[in-house]
Amino acid sequence: MKSFLYPTINPPSFTWVRPESGECSKVHEWIQPITDLTSLEKSKDAEVVILGVPLSRSSISASAASEFPEAFRRSWRSFTTYNLDEEIDLSEMTVFDAGNVPMHVTDISKCHTNIINASATIHQHFRHSKVCAIGGDHSITAMMVKGMQLEKPNEKIGILQFDTHFDLRDLSDNGPSNGTPMRNLIESGVVEGRNMYNIGLHGFFNTKDLKQYADEKGVNYFTLRTARKKGIEETVQHCLDELSSKVDTIYLTVDMDVLDIAYAPGVPASTPGGMTTEELLNGVLAAGRHPKVTAMDIVCLDPLRDTFVQPTVKLGTHVFLTFLTGVMLRQNASN
Amino acid sequence: MKSFLYPTINPPSFTWVRPESGECSKVHEWIQPITDLTSLEKSKDAEVVILGVPLSRSSISASAASEFPEAFRRSWRSFTTYNLDEEIDLSEMTVFDAGNVPMHVTDISKCHTNIINASATIHQHFRHSKVCAIGGDHSITAMMVKGMQLEKPNEKIGILQFDTHFDLRDLSDNGPSNGTPMRNLIESGVVEGRNMYNIGLHGFFNTKDLKQYADEKGVNYFTLRTARKKGIEETVQHCLDELSSKVDTIYLTVDMDVLDIAYAPGVPASTPGGMTTEELLNGVLAAGRHPKVTAMDIVCLDPLRDTFVQPTVKLGTHVFLTFLTGVMLRQNASN
Amino acid sequence: MKSFLYPTINPPSFTWVRPESGECSKVHEWIQPITDLTSLEKSKDAEVVILGVPLSRSSISASAASEFPEAFRRSWRSFTTYNLDEEIDLSEMTVFDAGNVPMHVTDISKCHTNIINASATIHQHFRHSKVCAIGGDHSITAMMVKGMQLEKPNEKIGILQFDTHFDLRDLSDNGPSNGTPMRNLIESGVVEGRNMYNIGLHGFFNTKDLKQYADEKGVNYFTLRTARKKGIEETVQHCLDELSSKVDTIYLTVDMDVLDIAYAPGVPASTPGGMTTEELLNGVLAAGRHPKVTAMDIVCLDPLRDTFVQPTVKLGTHVFLTFLTGVMLRQNASN
Amino acid sequence: MKSFLYPTINPPSFTWVRPESGECSKVHEWIQPITDLTSLEKSKDAEVVILGVPLSRSSISASAASEFPEAFRRSWRSFTTYNLDEEIDLSEMTVFDAGNVPMHVTDISKCHTNIINASATIHQHFRHSKVCAIGGDHSITAMMVKGMQLEKPNEKIGILQFDTHFDLRDLSDNGPSNGTPMRNLIESGVVEGRNMYNIGLHGFFNTKDLKQYADEKGVNYFTLRTARKKGIEETVQHCLDELSSKVDTIYLTVDMDVLDIAYAPGVPASTPGGMTTEELLNGVLAAGRHPKVTAMDIVCLDPLRDTFVQPTVKLGTHVFLTFLTGVMLRQNASN
Amino acid sequence: MKSFLYPTINPPSFTWVRPESGECSKVHEWIQPITDLTSLEKSKDAEVVILGVPLSRSSISASAASEFPEAFRRSWRSFTTYNLDEEIDLSEMTVFDAGNVPMHVTDISKCHTNIINASATIHQHFRHSKVCAIGGDHSITAMMVKGMQLEKPNEKIGILQFDTHFDLRDLSDNGPSNGTPMRNLIESGVVEGRNMYNIGLHGFFNTKDLKQYADEKGVNYFTLRTARKKGIEETVQHCLDELSSKVDTIYLTVDMDVLDIAYAPGVPASTPGGMTTEELLNGVLAAGRHPKVTAMDIVCLDPLRDTFVQPTVKLGTHVFLTFLTGVMLRQNASN
Amino acid sequence: MKSFLYPTINPPSFTWVRPESGECSKVHEWIQPITDLTSLEKSKDAEVVILGVPLSRSSISASAASEFPEAFRRSWRSFTTYNLDEEIDLSEMTVFDAGNVPMHVTDISKCHTNIINASATIHQHFRHSKVCAIGGDHSITAMMVKGMQLEKPNEKIGILQFDTHFDLRDLSDNGPSNGTPMRNLIESGVVEGRNMYNIGLHGFFNTKDLKQYADEKGVNYFTLRTARKKGIEETVQHCLDELSSKVDTIYLTVDMDVLDIAYAPGVPASTPGGMTTEELLNGVLAAGRHPKVTAMDIVCLDPLRDTFVQPTVKLGTHVFLTFLTGVMLRQNASN
Repeated sequence: MKSFLYPTINPPSFTWVRPESGECSKVHEWIQPITDLTSLEKSKDAEVVILGVPLSRSSISASAASEFPEAFRRSWRSFTTYNLDEEIDLSEMTVFDAGNVPMHVTDISKCHTNIINASATIHQHFRHSKVCAIGGDHSITAMMVKGMQLEKPNEKIGILQFDTHFDLRDLSDNGPSNGTPMRNLIESGVVEGRNMYNIGLHGFFNTKDLKQYADEKGVNYFTLRTARKKGIEETVQHCLDELSSKVDTIYLTVDMDVLDIAYAPGVPASTPGGMTTEELLNGVLAAGRHPKVTAMDIVCLDPLRDTFVQPTVKLGTHVFLTFLTGVMLRQNASN
Repeated sequence: MKSFLYPTINPPSFTWVRPESGECSKVHEWIQPITDLTSLEKSKDAEVVILGVPLSRSSISASAASEFPEAFRRSWRSFTTYNLDEEIDLSEMTVFDAGNVPMHVTDISKCHTNIINASATIHQHFRHSKVCAIGGDHSITAMMVKGMQLEKPNEKIGILQFDTHFDLRDLSDNGPSNGTPMRNLIESGVVEGRNMYNIGLHGFFNTKDLKQYADEKGVNYFTLRTARKKGIEETVQHCLDELSSKVDTIYLTVDMDVLDIAYAPGVPASTPGGMTTEELLNGVLAAGRHPKVTAMDIVCLDPLRDTFVQPTVKLGTHVFLTFLTGVMLRQNASN
Repeated sequence: MKSFLYPTINPPSFTWVRPESGECSKVHEWIQPITDLTSLEKSKDAEVVILGVPLSRSSISASAASEFPEAFRRSWRSFTTYNLDEEIDLSEMTVFDAGNVPMHVTDISKCHTNIINASATIHQHFRHSKVCAIGGDHSITAMMVKGMQLEKPNEKIGILQFDTHFDLRDLSDNGPSNGTPMRNLIESGVVEGRNMYNIGLHGFFNTKDLKQYADEKGVNYFTLRTARKKGIEETVQHCLDELSSKVDTIYLTVDMDVLDIAYAPGVPASTPGGMTTEELLNGVLAAGRHPKVTAMDIVCLDPLRDTFVQPTVKLGTHVFLTFLTGVMLRQNASN
Repeated sequence: MKSFLYPTINPPSFTWVRPESGECSKVHEWIQPITDLTSLEKSKDAEVVILGVPLSRSSISASAASEFPEAFRRSWRSFTTYNLDEEIDLSEMTVFDAGNVPMHVTDISKCHTNIINASATIHQHFRHSKVCAIGGDHSITAMMVKGMQLEKPNEKIGILQFDTHFDLRDLSDNGPSNGTPMRNLIESGVVEGRNMYNIGLHGFFNTKDLKQYADEKGVNYFTLRTARKKGIEETVQHCLDELSSKVDTIYLTVDMDVLDIAYAPGVPASTPGGMTTEELLNGVLAAGRHPKVTAMDIVCLDPLRDTFVQPTVKLGTHVFLTFLTGVMLRQNASN
Repeated sequence: MKSFLYPTINPPSFTWVRPESGECSKVHEWIQPITDLTSLEKSKDAEVVILGVPLSRSSISASAASEFPEAFRRSWRSFTTYNLDEEIDLSEMTVFDAGNVPMHVTDISKCHTNIINASATIHQHFRHSKVCAIGGDHSITAMMVKGMQLEKPNEKIGILQFDTHFDLRDLSDNGPSNGTPMRNLIESGVVEGRNMYNIGLHGFFNTKDLKQYADEKGVNYFTLRTARKKGIEETVQHCLDELSSKVDTIYLTVDMDVLDIAYAPGVPASTPGGMTTEELLNGVLAAGRHPKVTAMDIVCLDPLRDTFVQPTVKLGTHVFLTFLTGVMLRQNASN
Repeated sequence: MKSFLYPTINPPSFTWVRPESGECSKVHEWIQPITDLTSLEKSKDAEVVILGVPLSRSSISASAASEFPEAFRRSWRSFTTYNLDEEIDLSEMTVFDAGNVPMHVTDISKCHTNIINASATIHQHFRHSKVCAIGGDHSITAMMVKGMQLEKPNEKIGILQFDTHFDLRDLSDNGPSNGTPMRNLIESGVVEGRNMYNIGLHGFFNTKDLKQYADEKGVNYFTLRTARKKGIEETVQHCLDELSSKVDTIYLTVDMDVLDIAYAPGVPASTPGGMTTEELLNGVLAAGRHPKVTAMDIVCLDPLRDTFVQPTVKLGTHVFLTFLTGVMLRQNASN
């Protein structure tokens, strides 16, 4: 195993003790770590693979989003595998946890290269799996998509983004920070502006020049107000429909700062006036159901800034499980 | 007095100093403690009686819901008796506070027996009052209903439940914990599954086998998504209508974990994706208005896990006052 | 300068270091302090002027709302001047920060006189500006309006109020506290009851006699439930329409306690069952757009009771910027 | 009763339900409220009387020390009456709780007059009791001492003060705030500067001119560093010895801001570098033992700023019980 | 393995991923879980074994001390194995983590039996190891000692206790709660009162009758004040010397409530006036060095009540590592 | 001005409004910003200059120490300039605030170069001033000292360090993180190991190999236990005496993690078992008095992890003012 996956990826820092029998009802009993060559081999056919990306030094505002992958895994115990709303049991899918991308303390550029390499490795090994990256700050999205493209050079990639911000800042100012991933992908030619769809922009949290850049590059966006008028799910569906006609594969990126601060205190840049939990979960479910969505990430969730009962961490995990519910629903639909 | 009520119930631990005149505008000036034989006698005709049930050792996850009855009483000072939305003054009703059920530190079975006995005592003494139990964790519901049945053996009892969970776990696993009250009532023959209506289930917080058990026993349930589509009030009304045709009396149980964690941080099991405050209050008001609802409880609210300004404690008290508003509205309607 | 403005007003306690070039994208780079006679002179034509009113000793419940003006200014760094929803850039307007009203530690009456004087001074100097008072507790509203009337004696003033409470308590009980500003204005003849419109009353937070007083004086009010049925924006529009036909100028007062405690933990009197952020912002935007609204305040926000990530402080600032957006939209509309 | 004590004092807002038997082991079972003429009469011979003084509008920095009397009473349940260190049982003493001084919301001067009157009333009624005032901010000390002198005009009063500050600010600046009580007493001729002893001053929390004023007036003070070198108890003993030779009666005032912020987070002005809990308790015990100490207060403790487990509130109550331990030890010593 | 250890003990809920090489520098890389028969066999010769005892339903005040074993293990990552003060590397010792005692949700008596059985199993398997029980509340101490005695029936056991309380409450009142372990052991004849030594009692947190019971039974105790006068280490040494002459083996029990609340906010019953961190660590080190101390526990630490940066959890782990340092020092001394 | 200082340093982000008269009593009224060429020129003779160094991306554990310079400046309002313990008024010294070193978001190496350049610039401009760097994490110390050496190439530099850690980690592992500054200085030949003195090491927070490296390089260190036995001040004096004989100038670095977590919750790596506030302040005062100490820093204080009343931020500022007190005492001594 060591010769293949773990030179570019660290194993998870801890693994849950699993029940003896095959039965499981809690998420931590279901998701499997890769621990040896046997499980590595077996993991190839996983429907879903998780990759932790514990980087937040690249965040403009101070952030401990690097701690989310660990908090995410610890929170599994609070969730069952059974989605009552849809009456489906996620444990019928195979999900592997590949561990974390190794990071460097003072060389952010090296961290970013590591993410690209890890993403490529993951996409190479898990050829048919949905790849879920657990950030980390939003700078990781550019790297995850770049690594994906390395492995799938012939596929045109589109992006569906839930975000309060454009994330189109100029890289020449401060490098590939969490304010830049979309511009990074445009400028590097990996994703075209017109194949980006952003839902959730609102309030006083973007500058005018970013909007102008978005317009120039043909980036599609729907403010939260606009999306609410049309319906969040309808807006998501509209974006996916348009994207489907233009790209081969869709990457979903969920910046948790899209949420209202009342729902997501544990996000350094969260603001008043954002989405409700219900709106985001409905949007993510719709995205998860779409057959062209093959990768996703959840970013900018800082567990050290969350309140004591960890509403934001729990919500981050809920977003992940809701995406998986969509994935399973699309499989059921296609059967 | 001692020979009657207080061998099975403890007096409240403190009593508010009441204004000299009969007038009162704050809740703590209105609700009367039972302090001697005169007030005990007078209390018989109360429209509403409060019983604190400070037990949470029986909670699956660590909980200080045992502290809620005290926090509930302390919060009265922040509420007036006047409901502006409905333009009615609750102080026209008589409400007595009977104190708390005595508890044992290490014998949970004895605690449960005490609750059954206290419930029976209360239902015997307050023959025409609405009985409001202030939990404590959800295990108390089974005991309150059992005590109620002891006193009203010929009445068929139905249950309206606001909850994120079924609470239908197997009692043979871990005894009558807060995960079991509904199954407890079914298995003991006190309430039939088909006379139980649960509103608010959602997300990844129930296992599949519990749903299967619910289906087997004919338990009625509406996920939050389903209820939202129909309308929360309409769903409640629908449940009450069906129940009315089947039972003599309806017990309302409000598990505060039905609320979204953003609205109710002070609930050990609260989750993202739950009800809003507005939805729950509207649902409870509808239930309070129904003439067959004669008892209710509020459970699983842990004041020690609440945030500093105590949003959950205040909301718990608001649920109680909203129920009473419904009670008064039904009286006005029947006049 | 000293001879004119600052005998009755203190300069801001700190000033932001501004970028050298004229360009600005963050709120703290845009709003200008008055620092000398030149800027004083220049400020006269400001579209908007800010006045801090750091008084909360007059609050019935213990409050550090006195700390909000400072927290408000510090929070500017988290906001850009560009409103993406409306696609307008606030920095095209001129906004000055006049500093704070000087306060006395133990003589509340003197504090109130100071506010009246400062308000008059501001309205005299900034004859065409929208005056935004940043409280402080709600007692300041009566003083701000009185000072306004001193300078505009021939204008009939109306009030649009977002509030959970009537604020019509009897002044003979406890003087001009934060429970009294509307009664204060009625009794002093400054504003007629029938020219007051209150939106957002709900729950058990007003006494019956206050409602009776409101009815006697013809105060107009819409409970939150009523307003939600009609639509918050529609209700606001309705109030403004009626007010327009009766008064010359409208004063908007936003008591942050109108918000649900989940959205505004940093308000001493916040309650469950109040407005959502979205509702308040929409209401304020509608008010800001109305040509007769010439002054406003934001009150009862206590930063020391806010949770760590300061959702309430950020929301208070958002209310201010949303009002300014409305102001700019009305200007654009009139061009 | 009403004609005597309660025109100037409010009864406690709540009273604990007391055990039937005479035995008690917790503080809340022991301290007696005054509820009728019989208990009023009986209270005259109490060894100790408690008076709540819920005023903190007069505090320079925003403070909710007004909430301490209530938090103090609620905390009694966490303490037994038995002091194990000294092997004495406080319940052998009689302690009455007289309730709170009534306060006005917007007239601080009236609040201060009320305190003077209440203090005089208490000293008149409880001629032989130790009077313990529970603040409130430090401005109350001047009023409590003035009321005391009204009743005991022929007694020369000295003061022992634990404080980080001189509290000698000029009253002409901002009136009788919590920065002024010592100067207030000097300037009103109630206590001479040379009969004031302050222990605990330290760091950068006093201005130079206050020190100069102290020197002019002959106020005695020991910085914390000086007191530590000599020993806290020894310093207290030294002060009491000197005072004994000069005055008839000694008033002890404990400003909780004398404590290091690590021990007392719930004090608006607490600072790093202050006393430890152990030091303060030892100092208070020594003061309690001295036969000339007949009154005391505990001030500037804001329960709303305390951390969740309420270390400062508990410590405030501990200070009170430690003082009482000293009182009982002196009685035992004199037997 | 299953046939031996894990019928009475649960495996740890998670295990750390360990470095490939034998080298380790962090505690979580060093302590080994038991995962199969090979490691079980190997573990027999461990110098130290850890047993989690996640029970706190038996606590008088609401407590989540049941969550400490998990929090304890998670905190290992923050500690190295190298003690710089003593210049020793703990990783030269072999330490195994045996997992947790299985608990029942509603049958506390069964929980206690499980602990006795688990303790016996551990003492049987790890015949030469120091057994460290990680609580849980203080009721577990009686059970751990009883299980120990089952396996070592001929050994006379003594107890060294750090505690603010006697823990000698009457079992007939509320059963074997956390207020009773010492009386439980006396009454069951497992440990004689005269072989118990309690250090740290202080303040108003014990009733007089408990002291009388202690005196009757010959329990030895040193108040914190007394211990400070003699020196904490000297007091511990004195207790150990006396115990050595009377018993075969000594059990150390550390009730974290012995600490001052400023040092240990995460303890439900922590109080002002307790030990400092330095004092406790010095005391525990002295105990760890004594050759007759063969078992210990750490109890009453509730991670859900700790402040955000988890000072109490970290301190609990530090107590454990300090005890191990003592163990290693005694081994070095004996070589 | 722009041509000289501010190409390498940013001006402070805000400036306090200063009193008109020359008199000042609070720290924020005393410390002067550099705002134009006049003040720049005047600042040259300052006794003390402050430089903010807002970098914490280089911290091993997630840290927002980058926010301390701003929090530090905001806290000035809570401190007077008068030190009562020493009876000296700091305002007799001239202190300038030069602003912050500009930082890059994603290029940590560039940040470090900026710090070196800024340090050199400062040492060049303020030739006779004490230079106080306000971190930021501990990586900045190496850069500040390197910049100092650039300007003073002929001076041999020694270091006095208060720290829980050696900070001697290998730079080849993770670059110049906050675990490496001392090794960085040794390996770059800027400071010899034998000219480094570390006070405060304790517990389980260093690995064995770091101690071995320290020994190899002759680094001097005193564990907290050793220092307490000798006396903290005596230990500091001893270190300074030895350093004096070996070096020309001494740099003091205060890593706030040397403090016990009870005193400094706002430090990412703070631990139980560290220094008390009193000990650190005494140590810093002694260092400040020494004539060869010409520069210092305060690092690793994260205001976003502090508790609400900001004990750690206040303590950081107290450390700074205490150092200045020492500086002034040495000047007085030399007069």
